[in-house]
Amino acid sequence: MSPPIRIALIGMGKIAHDQHLPAIANDPAFELVATVSRHGGTLDALPFFDSIEALAASDVVVDAVALCTPPQVRRALAASAIDRGWHVFLEKPPAATLAEATALRTRAAAQGVSLFASWHSRHAAGVEPARAWLAERTLRDATITWAEDVRHWHPGQDWIFEPGGFGVFDPAINALSIATRIFPHPLFVESAEIEIPANRAAAIAANVLFRDEFGCAIDARFDFLQTGHQRWDIAARTDRGTMTLAEGGGTLAFDGATAAAQDDELATEYPALYRRFAELVRDGASEVDLTPLQLVADIHLKARIRIVDPFDW
Amino acid sequence: MSPPIRIALIGMGKIAHDQHLPAIANDPAFELVATVSRHGGTLDALPFFDSIEALAASDVVVDAVALCTPPQVRRALAASAIDRGWHVFLEKPPAATLAEATALRTRAAAQGVSLFASWHSRHAAGVEPARAWLAERTLRDATITWAEDVRHWHPGQDWIFEPGGFGVFDPAINALSIATRIFPHPLFVESAEIEIPANRAAAIAANVLFRDEFGCAIDARFDFLQTGHQRWDIAARTDRGTMTLAEGGGTLAFDGATAAAQDDELATEYPALYRRFAELVRDGASEVDLTPLQLVADIHLKARIRIVDPFDW
Repeated sequence: MSPPIRIALIGMGKIAHDQHLPAIANDPAFELVATVSRHGGTLDALPFFDSIEALAASDVVVDAVALCTPPQVRRALAASAIDRGWHVFLEKPPAATLAEATALRTRAAAQGVSLFASWHSRHAAGVEPARAWLAERTLRDATITWAEDVRHWHPGQDWIFEPGGFGVFDPAINALSIATRIFPHPLFVESAEIEIPANRAAAIAANVLFRDEFGCAIDARFDFLQTGHQRWDIAARTDRGTMTLAEGGGTLAFDGATAAAQDDELATEYPALYRRFAELVRDGASEVDLTPLQLVADIHLKARIRIVDPFDW
Repeated sequence: MSPPIRIALIGMGKIAHDQHLPAIANDPAFELVATVSRHGGTLDALPFFDSIEALAASDVVVDAVALCTPPQVRRALAASAIDRGWHVFLEKPPAATLAEATALRTRAAAQGVSLFASWHSRHAAGVEPARAWLAERTLRDATITWAEDVRHWHPGQDWIFEPGGFGVFDPAINALSIATRIFPHPLFVESAEIEIPANRAAAIAANVLFRDEFGCAIDARFDFLQTGHQRWDIAARTDRGTMTLAEGGGTLAFDGATAAAQDDELATEYPALYRRFAELVRDGASEVDLTPLQLVADIHLKARIRIVDPFDW
């Protein structure tokens, strides 16, 4: 077996603590060698730096980094890591804009390092069986409902409503990463309405009607103000039965009968991402699928904008 | 010499009459065999159809089509033409969204036909010399000013303010097609403000600050309400002199001294596009650079929106 990939974690916010640290700790292909954060927060017995430059200037040997910062600063950090010959794991969305993500792909190829634009929801337990089931059927129509309480899931994270923070499209891009994986044909934005709070820059809700090239409608509702029951569901009707992918892809039912269920996303999504990243590094390959980001950009390009009530935490 | 490419013109609006008809008439590589328009408007002695299906059902033999419709309907028409084995010339922007344009590229490759996403401004007389001059210098900063009177240039064209009509980005994408050609490094949207009239869906003005990866600022102002002197200018400062590309790329000056000027865009831009399209068809190749469209999508993705006064013709 190869020696472990020496990885540094950059951006020590909620997602790093909740998902990346346990996934790395449980994967023998990786050895966590340092953390980097502008806001402090050391881990026991592990070198800590307040910048990527400080990490590079240290005697810690690094093969790869995982970037868990907000998307606004991701491109510059990733470019710096690529230039140092480090492999790069990007949290979703891979950058704040398509031009940034495209430039990173070009740069990684030129430097010969692996770049991985991760989409964790694609590794939820129900996604692959849903894809296989839909591939053998003819889609009639579908609905996407991604409705969560931003105050619960992103408490006080103002960056999410800043330009480049994606607003409700921060979770919605998870739905779109699944939809672009399980539906067999490309989705086109037919119409969209985006709701932006009067005191913020990014969306708090959106309605989008997609169609595929055969005219099938995929109706999506994205909402950041959902209280009570939280919903991350995709439902589809086909020529032979119905499919419900719920809980962010974690549970799957065909015609109402459960076909797949995961106990705990910790046990599946991020461990699968790190297994994939290790494969890419070992194979000298990259995986940068920008389709979900492209759809979010298309929605903004074609949407009618509605200014709604101010949002405060 | 090969026999001429038998071409049909689809969408007989202003751009078809002003630019495509004279360019085709003067290029021996093409023979115009039919026109298609939902709104009528026959040309003397030429077969006319009210749909692409009617054209296909006729005994007119077609090798290629040029699509001059508004962008909202372009994808479906282009897909239909590709499926019939026709080569396709797309007016700019190539589609209403990136997913649509990407799907057309995939479809044309699968069908083995040539797809040409045209950017007419890239063929203005000053563009190529500007690119060559900038390639040998270090950029300091640049400004883009694209300010025209929509009432003069697009009188009554309501589609331009509908979703997918691009608003002020219909002309602005010409500026971006030049900028992405002449500046040697990718442009990233650092910040943007888009102004949308209260009674419309698309932008009437925008301010965008781009930066390249070296931090050079490219400051852009796009305005659809410019009266008096109309401006389509890109100015750049470098380590060795200044460059002014004016009149949509038609005139070029280095350090104030004229380096290139065209008498008439009719004489250069569209004839060059048709020469390129003929090359692509003869070579069995496609040319689909989506970078300008990607930048427009990135601007919308990252912009702050400001709702401004209603717009009426």
